[in-house]
Amino acid sequence: MTGFFNVSDLHTVLALAETFPATEVEKVPLSAALTRILAEDVSSDIDIPGFDRATMDGYAVRGADTFGASDAAPAWLRIAGTVGMGEEPAFSLSQGEAAAISTGGMLPQGADAVVMVEHTDRVDEETIEVYRSVAPGHHLITRGEDFSKGRVILTAGTPIGAAETGLLAASGCQSVAVFKRPLVGIISTGDEVVPVTETPKMAEIRDVNTHTLSAMVTEAGGVALPLGIAGDGEGDLEPLLAEALASCDTVLISGGSSVGMRDRTLTAMEGLEGSEVLVHGIAISPGKPTILARVGGKPVWGLPGHVASAMVVFEVVVRPFLLAASGSEATDRPKVPARLSRNIASAQGRTDFVRTRLVPEGEGYIAEPLPGKSGLIHTMVHADGLIRIEKDTEGLYSDSQVTVRLLP
Amino acid sequence: MTGFFNVSDLHTVLALAETFPATEVEKVPLSAALTRILAEDVSSDIDIPGFDRATMDGYAVRGADTFGASDAAPAWLRIAGTVGMGEEPAFSLSQGEAAAISTGGMLPQGADAVVMVEHTDRVDEETIEVYRSVAPGHHLITRGEDFSKGRVILTAGTPIGAAETGLLAASGCQSVAVFKRPLVGIISTGDEVVPVTETPKMAEIRDVNTHTLSAMVTEAGGVALPLGIAGDGEGDLEPLLAEALASCDTVLISGGSSVGMRDRTLTAMEGLEGSEVLVHGIAISPGKPTILARVGGKPVWGLPGHVASAMVVFEVVVRPFLLAASGSEATDRPKVPARLSRNIASAQGRTDFVRTRLVPEGEGYIAEPLPGKSGLIHTMVHADGLIRIEKDTEGLYSDSQVTVRLLP
Repeated sequence: MTGFFNVSDLHTVLALAETFPATEVEKVPLSAALTRILAEDVSSDIDIPGFDRATMDGYAVRGADTFGASDAAPAWLRIAGTVGMGEEPAFSLSQGEAAAISTGGMLPQGADAVVMVEHTDRVDEETIEVYRSVAPGHHLITRGEDFSKGRVILTAGTPIGAAETGLLAASGCQSVAVFKRPLVGIISTGDEVVPVTETPKMAEIRDVNTHTLSAMVTEAGGVALPLGIAGDGEGDLEPLLAEALASCDTVLISGGSSVGMRDRTLTAMEGLEGSEVLVHGIAISPGKPTILARVGGKPVWGLPGHVASAMVVFEVVVRPFLLAASGSEATDRPKVPARLSRNIASAQGRTDFVRTRLVPEGEGYIAEPLPGKSGLIHTMVHADGLIRIEKDTEGLYSDSQVTVRLLP
Repeated sequence: MTGFFNVSDLHTVLALAETFPATEVEKVPLSAALTRILAEDVSSDIDIPGFDRATMDGYAVRGADTFGASDAAPAWLRIAGTVGMGEEPAFSLSQGEAAAISTGGMLPQGADAVVMVEHTDRVDEETIEVYRSVAPGHHLITRGEDFSKGRVILTAGTPIGAAETGLLAASGCQSVAVFKRPLVGIISTGDEVVPVTETPKMAEIRDVNTHTLSAMVTEAGGVALPLGIAGDGEGDLEPLLAEALASCDTVLISGGSSVGMRDRTLTAMEGLEGSEVLVHGIAISPGKPTILARVGGKPVWGLPGHVASAMVVFEVVVRPFLLAASGSEATDRPKVPARLSRNIASAQGRTDFVRTRLVPEGEGYIAEPLPGKSGLIHTMVHADGLIRIEKDTEGLYSDSQVTVRLLP
């Protein structure tokens, strides 16, 4: 192999995500389900709520009994009883009757509305005056109005957030079937790279990619397994790669951005039994020198060594693969429109991702592209998002409207 | 006390956040620092990078030696040596000399630029032709260009994301001083509320708020400690509240939306030694019946019982307090502009938060308000964000431009 790439378009690469399998399914307690991806459809074991439920403090009534009621001409109703919280009323309402009820209480048989306590007066022990008419169905939630028994309330592939957690609780799910978090082995390469525990000697740098990529794997719902640093020597990478493949679902190798090291990474990948190099270069910037191989059904990635490049490639390319492997319905990042603060040049024939700061301006934002070489870390710290410039575009003008994909 | 509120404005309530203390500081390993809040300024122990570093494969040169070089009139340079990765070059460049170098390699003394290998040809063992002129500083990162030694690179209060993790690694932080996650005790109330492990009998419902609020606490960087369900009886709440205050930094009591139960919650709060009720009702919808007391310097919240109300109050009111307690620089949610799909009515004198779905439309979004009683869970599952309607506004018209605060 030579150092030349046979670059693939981004969309071609992304389409490969579905050719890799999703992880297995495991059961986790509801309290541990947050941010996990639901692996099966969930339906409720009960109607939610299981009864007509007051949403105001006041009196359960038959709405028709209050029609025409006003301050001048209140309706008089007989108090048939008081509803206790969590208790099924032992009585029912006949015409002209009301029952004292609190928010969350169960309406007695015969009642079809709740009149707010503020719109009533107690005349005596047995009687109230009602000053407003109330339509049937008012101030209550009917049985099954939120969800009816047996109905699918959440579908497989749904990321579990706070609201989903609430729904799972309401429907009695004490444990939840979710996809396992993909285990991602992370290897840095380069004779010049030393671990964070060491003070770099002249010409050395600390390993940053292991830490940024681990964090991004975690954020994407995976489990990061840092495996250390491989030197540039022949055969240095192979043992770590074999270890990664033995235990992990996905492998990330970063570094080796030089032609020689790219070849070393490629050679190590090709040397594995049954390996197939799917991608050797992507028409994106930063991130062109990205490699993807399939080994034993698992994706093995060769990422650029430059920190910012590796982060952009992870965000734009690797993350969608991880989400797919986690069974997630592909979830785009939120995007915000913004006004571009200055011209950006772009080369045709590749899709550019420009790191951008967002500065509030009125109700919207100004997008300030962050200049910076992709070997620098600090542009990523200040980046709120990425602007995507399509391959057939030569650049974007200052003041033009752009869409910024938000970074977490 | 009566059931009537003496409502406070939202901004008055939010201003109280800073009257509560931040949590203590703890050290965590770098690998566990993601999503935590930095508790001290961090500066780098070294220049990053510590040397002039090539960002391309090619030859280190003195830029002046290439001025005027072209395909027709290449510059001829003598190869003075090859730079090994991670090695300090043992030679320096004199005029008319070049050194083979790979991406990430250290420039030898005398070199001030890198010419890409694609713009050169090897004439013989000792000579290259250079076809492009290269300006000094090109294709390299200079010593300290990312960060210089001793400079503060991250300030206290910064949330640690992937990029910050990389910066901490680069500057040698093996452990990081962060604010402790606030421990949040969570109590549900109501005789009608049963745990998720039970099948509700008629007139009962499962406890949802414990689960939604626990998830939201986790998402906000806190640690949720669910303490169970208190009945509506006199004295039912007090033991759980005492337990919560003994161990937690913040207490959330949900439910008790009925006048009677609100009074019970308030009574329990007021019965605690040294308690001070700061807020008794907020001019927001949903969420009016929200109570905040200070007990022993800790915030104790009484939240509405309705699931969606409790979630909105958490998002809009409690979360900013938790972030402040975690030492976080107040971080707003991202906001996106959208076109409103229909009229929304709003009452004057209160700030409304309308649950909204976002539907992509061209480069932007349509905001579809989700109708729904606040006792229903399913509107929260479908909500992508909240529209805020200020208290002096009677409503918003269909097709008007609104700002939607994104929910996670």
